[in-house]
Amino acid sequence: MSLIKPETLKGFRDYPPELMMPREKLIDTAKRIYRSYGFAPIDTPALEKSEILAGQGSDETDKQMFRFTDAGGRDVGMRFDLTVPLARFAAQHIGQLGTPFKRYHIATVWRGEKPQRGRYREFMQCDFDTIGTTSIVSDIETALVIFDLMNAIGFDEFTIRVNNRKVLNGLLQKSGLEDRATEVLRAIDKLDKIGPEKVTAEMKVTASASDEQAASILRLSQLNGTNDEILSAVGQMVAGNETGELGVENLRQLVDGVRAVGVDEKNLKLDIGIARGLDYYTGTVFETELGQLPGIGSVCSGGRYDNLASKFTKLELPGIGASLGLDRLLAAQEELGLIEKVRTPAPVFIVYFEKDRLADYLQIAAALRGAGIGAVMYPENKKFDKQLKYADKQGFQVAIIAGSQDFAEQKCQVKNLAQRSQVEVSIADGFESLINQVGEALSH
Amino acid sequence: MSLIKPETLKGFRDYPPELMMPREKLIDTAKRIYRSYGFAPIDTPALEKSEILAGQGSDETDKQMFRFTDAGGRDVGMRFDLTVPLARFAAQHIGQLGTPFKRYHIATVWRGEKPQRGRYREFMQCDFDTIGTTSIVSDIETALVIFDLMNAIGFDEFTIRVNNRKVLNGLLQKSGLEDRATEVLRAIDKLDKIGPEKVTAEMKVTASASDEQAASILRLSQLNGTNDEILSAVGQMVAGNETGELGVENLRQLVDGVRAVGVDEKNLKLDIGIARGLDYYTGTVFETELGQLPGIGSVCSGGRYDNLASKFTKLELPGIGASLGLDRLLAAQEELGLIEKVRTPAPVFIVYFEKDRLADYLQIAAALRGAGIGAVMYPENKKFDKQLKYADKQGFQVAIIAGSQDFAEQKCQVKNLAQRSQVEVSIADGFESLINQVGEALSH
Repeated sequence: MSLIKPETLKGFRDYPPELMMPREKLIDTAKRIYRSYGFAPIDTPALEKSEILAGQGSDETDKQMFRFTDAGGRDVGMRFDLTVPLARFAAQHIGQLGTPFKRYHIATVWRGEKPQRGRYREFMQCDFDTIGTTSIVSDIETALVIFDLMNAIGFDEFTIRVNNRKVLNGLLQKSGLEDRATEVLRAIDKLDKIGPEKVTAEMKVTASASDEQAASILRLSQLNGTNDEILSAVGQMVAGNETGELGVENLRQLVDGVRAVGVDEKNLKLDIGIARGLDYYTGTVFETELGQLPGIGSVCSGGRYDNLASKFTKLELPGIGASLGLDRLLAAQEELGLIEKVRTPAPVFIVYFEKDRLADYLQIAAALRGAGIGAVMYPENKKFDKQLKYADKQGFQVAIIAGSQDFAEQKCQVKNLAQRSQVEVSIADGFESLINQVGEALSH
Repeated sequence: MSLIKPETLKGFRDYPPELMMPREKLIDTAKRIYRSYGFAPIDTPALEKSEILAGQGSDETDKQMFRFTDAGGRDVGMRFDLTVPLARFAAQHIGQLGTPFKRYHIATVWRGEKPQRGRYREFMQCDFDTIGTTSIVSDIETALVIFDLMNAIGFDEFTIRVNNRKVLNGLLQKSGLEDRATEVLRAIDKLDKIGPEKVTAEMKVTASASDEQAASILRLSQLNGTNDEILSAVGQMVAGNETGELGVENLRQLVDGVRAVGVDEKNLKLDIGIARGLDYYTGTVFETELGQLPGIGSVCSGGRYDNLASKFTKLELPGIGASLGLDRLLAAQEELGLIEKVRTPAPVFIVYFEKDRLADYLQIAAALRGAGIGAVMYPENKKFDKQLKYADKQGFQVAIIAGSQDFAEQKCQVKNLAQRSQVEVSIADGFESLINQVGEALSH
């Protein structure tokens, strides 16, 4: 029989341990922070009826959907994000769940995108949302979750950029550009990339903006200074427009709220130039930039919406949420040297040195595990060098070595694999000294 | 626009928080145990080329596969287990990974089964395997992992039932039934269900076994006594047959190995009647029975195989592994009352009592989180009763209440929601007393 070539589909990839362990660590950190704010986990099926998924995202997501007819003749699709399933889930269950409903969802999604460097057709999303309240408290909390996440992940320099769509809408109303909001916002979103002159030109062409209109929009987007200075300047610019004034008031409450718990202004900055997509968001919007890697793009983005599930229920479900960009964060951690390259989650390696001493090695491993220290015994009584080479390659930190002579004298050798140092430890006390010695070696 | 009915596909289900939190807890426990033995996480794509998946499981899994043609014209399928992807993964990467390769994989699989109570078309598997070694050390370790898992999950009474396929094969060879092994083993597998007489009858019909042959197979399957007694009896029955003797020797090493680390015989019992499937396993096989719920079936099963990936590589990859039955375990935990019914992962609820005191409530929540205690502030300044009703429904354990008068006197109320008791705590010390009081309330 001829062999089948072992390979993944184009645009898909495997996660071997050295990629998977940092991903799991990141996910564990996200879960811990989400849970500390009362966000509870949910899961939804990978497959939904196509009518649930289609037409809910963009034309692009429709085109990219893995969609097929199942064996029962049903038109089904694989989820392309976690927002549409959340809308369906909330519409279906919100009666039992009660509001405010705070959930996180960390799960795989699929998009048949054109494969390119760093983009795959299968990836994980890591979302958290608060559904069923319009209170500014949830906006403040969303900012605090992002702040805690970035700190917990280990980034020193990051800035959560915050805007409120009502501020932009207010100015558009005041400037008479309300009916061309989409075109204006699309131009503004490019400010960082193409600069103010080209943005002005684009607004004049696509939104038929006058020089004066374009200038006032641009002035708003480029406001600089402390958060208080920006609030005051924006306040003047939108004065008299109800929507704009509400947006400024919401931004002020948010800034005051995060300040109350000690968030420094360098970590949360108003940026009136952020539009973040066009239709979905209606209030606060967030982006998060890493100071050391601005080019990588926003690593946590989101915002407030007025109505999550209008396609599925007449019940109005306002909410706010954000999504942590796992892949970007992993790339960032790697670039900043925050990832350890190991292939084993257990730090201790026990050499199978003496064939007849299997029971002793098993007991040493069990004692270490009992003390919360992961330990692996090499399963074969191969040459010492071969075993140690394996231990090095897998990234073990400590090796335990004991032969007949050692056992006769009730001792064993503890080798620090990184430092290439070795100490002798008594095992006459039921492994207590050994556990202490290993614990010490691992703490350095 | 008419509304789309929010519902999942037939045979699929949502996991709301009260189902998801116990599942995550179980998965976290499994990860911790796997990692302590050096099993490292991997992940593979949900979608594979159909040629990778088809014909690898049974006729049934082929029929049940979600298989379709993607937008690029590729014949693809959704994985129906984690073993076939492991075989493909190992064949593809084992050169870089090195052996022994120990991995765990906790992931979703899909099977278009006929929906029935407690069976879904999407479920999680939770496998661990050691690849690339035939050493008995890995068999012993697999048993120890299962032992540690059951203890960590919280089951008091469980029995890991162990057999070795070589023992059965040896006796079949000795009895001249070697060429009818499939039929004989299929009959023996039913011993618990249909009893010895019907098994004998079936062996006589399907395997054309003589009375004597059937009796000897049955005698082996029904052996009783201590592990040592069983080993000695089996040893006599297969004496002279090389395969059978090797099987007995392996069982003896396994029994000695787990005994060396203190596993009681009530938790690991030889059971020569276990055949566990027909073709895949070639050595040690495991099943795990819960003493309080034997009817639920095996909650952790597995065994040793000679060659994992023969369809993908000429490299021989022997290994051993097992799979934890998450759904069965959750059902068991629920039935034994081991699951707490809560909807929030954070224990503390902060009442939004006084509209103008938002900053203070935010500070209390931040202080608790800083001390590692999850805390949720109700986002709206609604009526006190309404807020507390929400807190009760979600399963919060402690509520913190403070009004103007309290803040003026630098104190707040800590209410134990389960015990309906309340104490007053000073907050003059920067929340230290509050944190201690809450910590104490949560520890009961």
